[in-house]
Amino acid sequence: MKIAVDAMGGDHAPKEIVLGVEQARDLYSDIEFTLYGDQAQINPLLTNQDRITVVHTSEMIEMGEEPVRAIRSKKDSSIVRAATAVKEKEADAFFSAGNTGAVMAAGLFIVGRIKGIDRPGLTSILPAAHPDTDKQNFVYLDTGANAESKEKNLVQYAYLGKFYAQKVLGIENPSIALLNNGEEEDKGDRLHKAVWQSLNSADDLNFIGNVEAGSLLMGKADVVVTDGWTGNAALKATEGTAKTMLALIKDSILKGGLRAKLGYLILKPVFSIVGKNMSTSTYGGAVLLGLKAPVVKTHGSSKADAIKNTIGQIKTMIESQVVNQTVDYFNNQEVLEKMDKTDKID
Amino acid sequence: MKIAVDAMGGDHAPKEIVLGVEQARDLYSDIEFTLYGDQAQINPLLTNQDRITVVHTSEMIEMGEEPVRAIRSKKDSSIVRAATAVKEKEADAFFSAGNTGAVMAAGLFIVGRIKGIDRPGLTSILPAAHPDTDKQNFVYLDTGANAESKEKNLVQYAYLGKFYAQKVLGIENPSIALLNNGEEEDKGDRLHKAVWQSLNSADDLNFIGNVEAGSLLMGKADVVVTDGWTGNAALKATEGTAKTMLALIKDSILKGGLRAKLGYLILKPVFSIVGKNMSTSTYGGAVLLGLKAPVVKTHGSSKADAIKNTIGQIKTMIESQVVNQTVDYFNNQEVLEKMDKTDKID
Repeated sequence: MKIAVDAMGGDHAPKEIVLGVEQARDLYSDIEFTLYGDQAQINPLLTNQDRITVVHTSEMIEMGEEPVRAIRSKKDSSIVRAATAVKEKEADAFFSAGNTGAVMAAGLFIVGRIKGIDRPGLTSILPAAHPDTDKQNFVYLDTGANAESKEKNLVQYAYLGKFYAQKVLGIENPSIALLNNGEEEDKGDRLHKAVWQSLNSADDLNFIGNVEAGSLLMGKADVVVTDGWTGNAALKATEGTAKTMLALIKDSILKGGLRAKLGYLILKPVFSIVGKNMSTSTYGGAVLLGLKAPVVKTHGSSKADAIKNTIGQIKTMIESQVVNQTVDYFNNQEVLEKMDKTDKID
Repeated sequence: MKIAVDAMGGDHAPKEIVLGVEQARDLYSDIEFTLYGDQAQINPLLTNQDRITVVHTSEMIEMGEEPVRAIRSKKDSSIVRAATAVKEKEADAFFSAGNTGAVMAAGLFIVGRIKGIDRPGLTSILPAAHPDTDKQNFVYLDTGANAESKEKNLVQYAYLGKFYAQKVLGIENPSIALLNNGEEEDKGDRLHKAVWQSLNSADDLNFIGNVEAGSLLMGKADVVVTDGWTGNAALKATEGTAKTMLALIKDSILKGGLRAKLGYLILKPVFSIVGKNMSTSTYGGAVLLGLKAPVVKTHGSSKADAIKNTIGQIKTMIESQVVNQTVDYFNNQEVLEKMDKTDKID
């Protein structure tokens, strides 16, 4: 298999990208990589070019740029070139740690949607951190690809999430929940009430009802479906609260004198478990599901180790043929008609 | 001043309600209370009836009941009777720890809206918990009174929040932010883009721009305005994450053997600071702002101490005449016309 890598995206590019790719190359003997970026910077970083091809690109999309304009104007950027390689079947997946919007736009406009999917959903694997659950993690989408969603978008997310949980997490019959403002059937605005009905009436979804943002980390379902607006707010609030709490603990320890520092030293293993369990980025990158090939974005701050792990995740996606399963499911007149009928509300 | 109290609402009613009211009575010599509820249960709990009148009611609205139906059918419930006392100016404020929906419905349909306010917003004072901020707390609305909001609702919330921060938190010129999915001006769905423009062009609002859910606890603004759908999701995610992290710390300590237990004992003061700083209910109850009198709801699990604190908060609301200030502001043809023009999108 072949992975097209944007070598210039991320806070530590190209160094940590190249390091991570080499680690993954040494770990997985069946992956070939094409690195897109500035050859003058990339080549000196490479230990050896075994199964790694470097393709020079002359432009770079910066973190602050307007995504759609950037991918339209910067044809020789690493993002556009890597995405184009996937489109032209020169690579099986596209991977970047760069400008999220630009990666998503390149996925949408260059790699392209699966027929029958109206809008791809940005998907993360989040930790089921609460000690009372047996689950390790769960699939969460849309984390913010679309600020305004329709009913059929969320119904499609349920299938995208189901196939992803099956193929990537290995869960045979994933339970699916809808993020809503209450657990009962009649909760939510018009959109979420309608989505509840659609998910509940689908024979091929193991729908278990609503889940509230307050119990997101309790691992009540294998897949949590949400519109990108709410999904983004709940995920950011979760991440922000975890960070604030850790900062508060650190600050209180610093101000607590010798006693607190001693306590911290003793409890260090505990904090390490907590930090790891609460980390929303332990399991690889965010995947734009619903595209014709895996398009995966890791956090801009990712170091080599995270890059290597995300490549492992991409390998699983390619091997499991999760994209083909999705294509097959939606390449069906009955399914397409069902989706169209789903749009009862605007 | 006179406060009408639902003595039957909450997990520990009427006992903790009565205890808290007596504590507040002993603390504040200028408050008179009317307790609505089952006399046979309330009277034996009272130490003395100084400045406390008990009015017997024969019905009770349970936690699970459909709110609007409940307040329409149970005319002799403690919630309906207490709200009616406020409507008939027999009391200055209504306080309950019962069914949130029923308290809000009673506020809306019995106490009534201020002229010019289309929908009241449920308002909490949240902790600015992050150690990097100088603020103690901030005003947050709507936490979920309305699942579907229009532009003018959010603009009205900005004024309700401003007056509340001025009068109750004592901040002269409160900074106001909009909860959105990014910090830049052009972020958000149509609703939030439009609200940004309206808030930014208001001369009498100290609008500082967008704030993301991830930095909610960082205390970037004195008032954070949000629609009830997003506000509810972000607040619940914040509370849920804090609870999950504390549960995870506790669990790791329990599993960590003697060493972890020792560390915990040493760090106990730190955890106590963290717990207190992260508690979203340290500062009294949730207030339904935009009504003709203070209507305040505390958490159902509130004990006497929390009840007493919330009564202190209600006393501040009454003394500061925050409701009158709101009435005066909206009792103005120019303001009303401005609000009507605000509704550019549906």
